Amino acid sequence: MNYYPPSIRNAIKQISRLPGIGEKTAERLAMHILRAPRVEAEHLAHSILDLKQNIRLCRHCFNLSDGDICRICRDPGRNARLLCVVEQPADMVSLEKSGAFSGRYHILGGTLSPMNGIGPGDIRVGELLSRLDRGDIEEVILATSTTVEGESTAAYLADRLAKYTVKTTRIASGVPIGGDLKYVDQVTLRKALEGRHSVK
Amino acid sequence: MNYYPPSIRNAIKQISRLPGIGEKTAERLAMHILRAPRVEAEHLAHSILDLKQNIRLCRHCFNLSDGDICRICRDPGRNARLLCVVEQPADMVSLEKSGAFSGRYHILGGTLSPMNGIGPGDIRVGELLSRLDRGDIEEVILATSTTVEGESTAAYLADRLAKYTVKTTRIASGVPIGGDLKYVDQVTLRKALEGRHSVK
Repeated sequence: MNYYPPSIRNAIKQISRLPGIGEKTAERLAMHILRAPRVEAEHLAHSILDLKQNIRLCRHCFNLSDGDICRICRDPGRNARLLCVVEQPADMVSLEKSGAFSGRYHILGGTLSPMNGIGPGDIRVGELLSRLDRGDIEEVILATSTTVEGESTAAYLADRLAKYTVKTTRIASGVPIGGDLKYVDQVTLRKALEGRHSVK
Repeated sequence: MNYYPPSIRNAIKQISRLPGIGEKTAERLAMHILRAPRVEAEHLAHSILDLKQNIRLCRHCFNLSDGDICRICRDPGRNARLLCVVEQPADMVSLEKSGAFSGRYHILGGTLSPMNGIGPGDIRVGELLSRLDRGDIEEVILATSTTVEGESTAAYLADRLAKYTVKTTRIASGVPIGGDLKYVDQVTLRKALEGRHSVK
């Protein structure tokens, strides 16, 4: 590190703070930036600053957004009566990539985790109930992960939603597509059997 | 990509331009930056801008430097009569890390490569000869790589240096330390045999 002038040393230090980027890779990236056209380095630096400056949470669903209300909540083509509850923005992105959902989202910002002191007040349960109070939602799909925390959060939410007239559903668990049965874990197999449906 | 707001999409695009960083990794890094404290993102962005703004080439040896003259050329403790010729700044860094050299450097900025139209005028041969003309250098160590281009560049430089009173040397080739003889290639073995020296 000391073999480089301070500006390079500092860039290597900052870059190597990123997750999964070691000092060797940071050195390589810094050297690349040094060789790259100035405008390219500027675009990179400004895109990083823009990230922190422009991105906020959507007022309705708490998705990451460039404005007050996110693209999905603004889209009149999406079914506003269908609400999918997920843990994090990344989960929403996965569902969007699947192309299987055309409703709106509610991002909890985590799961209940009593062991870590995370209760209903720490994730956006109150905000979810407020959205239901406004009344135009027909179905809430609980799409938290199928981890212990995700399942218990879904169970908790199902319980809280019981007094609403809204239909509450949970995403299916089972053998993933392309999954070889002999490699699938037993809990998943049990879920897959429980969730079996008739084929004609 | 379209599932993200423009600022995030742009950051992912810019980050994924870095070598060895795919879109998936760029997505992960952008999300990390988004979660990280604002000051951390700013440090990263500014270090990138500083790289392009502050780094220039040393007037003497063409090393990367924060100022007009690099740290090594400024250091009075280094042997100014010993000059090590390397291809790139990264080669100099490797030699510095070895701790085996205490002289100064001359960075060619490449190798001769007639196939790619790179001749003596395209690398810093003239600048090297000017340094020798100034007269206080006693030995030039040719430390170009042991690739075809590196070897022929070294041979060309040795030829050009013949008319100077300076001593010209070439780094040794041979079996790398920790190398298992049965895995060492034949050209290296031949070089190792040619370069054998008596042991007492």
